Amino acid sequence: MPEIRWDIITEERVIIATERSRRPHDFKKTETPAEPKPEFAPNCPFCVGNEAMTPPEVDAFREAGTPPNTPGWRVRVVPNKFPALAPEGNLQPRTQGIYTLSDGVGVHEVIIETPRHNESPVTMPLAQWTDALRMYQRRLQVLSGDARLKTILIFRNEGKAAGASLEHPHAQLVGLTFVPPVLQRHIEGVQRYRSRYGRHPFEAIVGQELREGVRVVRQTERFLLYTPFAARAPFELAILPLEPVARFEQLPDETLEEFAALLQDALRRLHTALNDPPYNYMLFTAPNGYDGEFWLHLRIAPRLSIDAGFELGSGVGINITAPEDAARYLREV
Amino acid sequence: MPEIRWDIITEERVIIATERSRRPHDFKKTETPAEPKPEFAPNCPFCVGNEAMTPPEVDAFREAGTPPNTPGWRVRVVPNKFPALAPEGNLQPRTQGIYTLSDGVGVHEVIIETPRHNESPVTMPLAQWTDALRMYQRRLQVLSGDARLKTILIFRNEGKAAGASLEHPHAQLVGLTFVPPVLQRHIEGVQRYRSRYGRHPFEAIVGQELREGVRVVRQTERFLLYTPFAARAPFELAILPLEPVARFEQLPDETLEEFAALLQDALRRLHTALNDPPYNYMLFTAPNGYDGEFWLHLRIAPRLSIDAGFELGSGVGINITAPEDAARYLREV
Repeated sequence: MPEIRWDIITEERVIIATERSRRPHDFKKTETPAEPKPEFAPNCPFCVGNEAMTPPEVDAFREAGTPPNTPGWRVRVVPNKFPALAPEGNLQPRTQGIYTLSDGVGVHEVIIETPRHNESPVTMPLAQWTDALRMYQRRLQVLSGDARLKTILIFRNEGKAAGASLEHPHAQLVGLTFVPPVLQRHIEGVQRYRSRYGRHPFEAIVGQELREGVRVVRQTERFLLYTPFAARAPFELAILPLEPVARFEQLPDETLEEFAALLQDALRRLHTALNDPPYNYMLFTAPNGYDGEFWLHLRIAPRLSIDAGFELGSGVGINITAPEDAARYLREV
Repeated sequence: MPEIRWDIITEERVIIATERSRRPHDFKKTETPAEPKPEFAPNCPFCVGNEAMTPPEVDAFREAGTPPNTPGWRVRVVPNKFPALAPEGNLQPRTQGIYTLSDGVGVHEVIIETPRHNESPVTMPLAQWTDALRMYQRRLQVLSGDARLKTILIFRNEGKAAGASLEHPHAQLVGLTFVPPVLQRHIEGVQRYRSRYGRHPFEAIVGQELREGVRVVRQTERFLLYTPFAARAPFELAILPLEPVARFEQLPDETLEEFAALLQDALRRLHTALNDPPYNYMLFTAPNGYDGEFWLHLRIAPRLSIDAGFELGSGVGINITAPEDAARYLREV
């Protein structure tokens, strides 16, 4: 019997229909191993030595004494060459008859996580990976000084089916002048839950998940890695700090290292269980200047199925793998 | 300069970033023409003669005197073999600690639009295509008698990248026991617009689009085919009746024929302009038993780009083709 499950925060429904997973094309693994990649790719704009192929860097961790836009960096941040938003413009909405529009103002950066083309979050030395996440923190910190930006979203697209166009390890950052619907609904849902039950829904989730255990993939000293009860798609994962922290850049260094190790572990488990699947992850940190309650979290969305007409037309996900099955599978990897 | 445009109904924002369309992998056409398909495919469960390969049919247009589940049909409706929802179960939500769930009750049908494997909505004789849409009407009519169903969504997945798993021409129908978020937000947006401006937003849209013309692809006696001002993705199209009609099954036969011809024309234009792109369409008709204001419409979503981490994490679409450019391109096909 399929189930309908309610998201505890948004109150939106998801269909868990595990009978459908018998369909033969589901989760077909690519049996051909990917060709080994070189450490340096001559045409890759993110490779070391090719710094001139990107717009001038805005930030980097680099060896003392090396000038910007030259080798010597460990993590490098550049503006996106094809930005979705422009850094300057008029924020004021204007009308065009019945319609409303404005200049598309915002920030769009690329965080190049390693000089080496052939690394990945799964294979990278933990120190390098932690440095990459430390750069996420630094960009959040720096850009939070731009009062025009209300939301800074850091995300990763890994694999073509997840929207990646370049294979060199990188994340992206988009700074928006507004709070977008996904974040807005999250915040409203948290407020609704708080006013109804007197606590943050993540507090309730941490309590129940640790008690039940069936959706826990791993618990560390300060974090929980689990499959959400109402996951919209197969093998979706989330990472929560066990105690509330509003902003990613607030994580002290030791805590960041623990987070980096757990995120790498999560991606390794997916890599092994699902044969290097395409995935996205999205880091949700408090909106800029928002002083209401916020509990940072990260969502990992493997792209194993395609949203089709039903999902586009309804907004309801059909998940053909029960979160409990996904968690067990990922625990046992 | 990229633009932010507001959806007139949901008030959600979309980014129109046409600078990005220079990226070389965008809209890459498959240059190899698809292999010609046979009229009959021995392993296709939707082909004539293979009726035993599907669950028993629930409806059909067929030659007088031919029994169910045998050849002789023009359009055939069967339950989905891997349904997302079960026809019977307990609708009552139950709790599991802090979480809420219920049995996944609903209807999931397949509407097989032609006996011939190698036809498509683009190549089908108009009479056959109109018959298919007449069956959409009949299923809506029949299933509206099931008071458990609040929403009946008919949609089509064409091409693998749009979620299709079988190539034989078919649409799907899902009957839900609730009004899903996309429809709920549409209805709330219409009410908000009505209370603010004293008219239905589609009335405003029809007026402005016919006056401006830049987003109109085609106008017929009773319908408008256009690219929405805040289209979330390249080459998105919508069809609206020029005057409000709440329910698709209310369209009289002559009007249905006009709609069928226009929808076929829209799909042909996409086929020619974009070299047979994958697409979904979704038919929005009034929720079952809903007596508030509703104006039926159909949305066509070509799947030319992939929602990546930004879109998943924000809910904001990035459209790299201005709706005005898409409309001009499709008008001139």
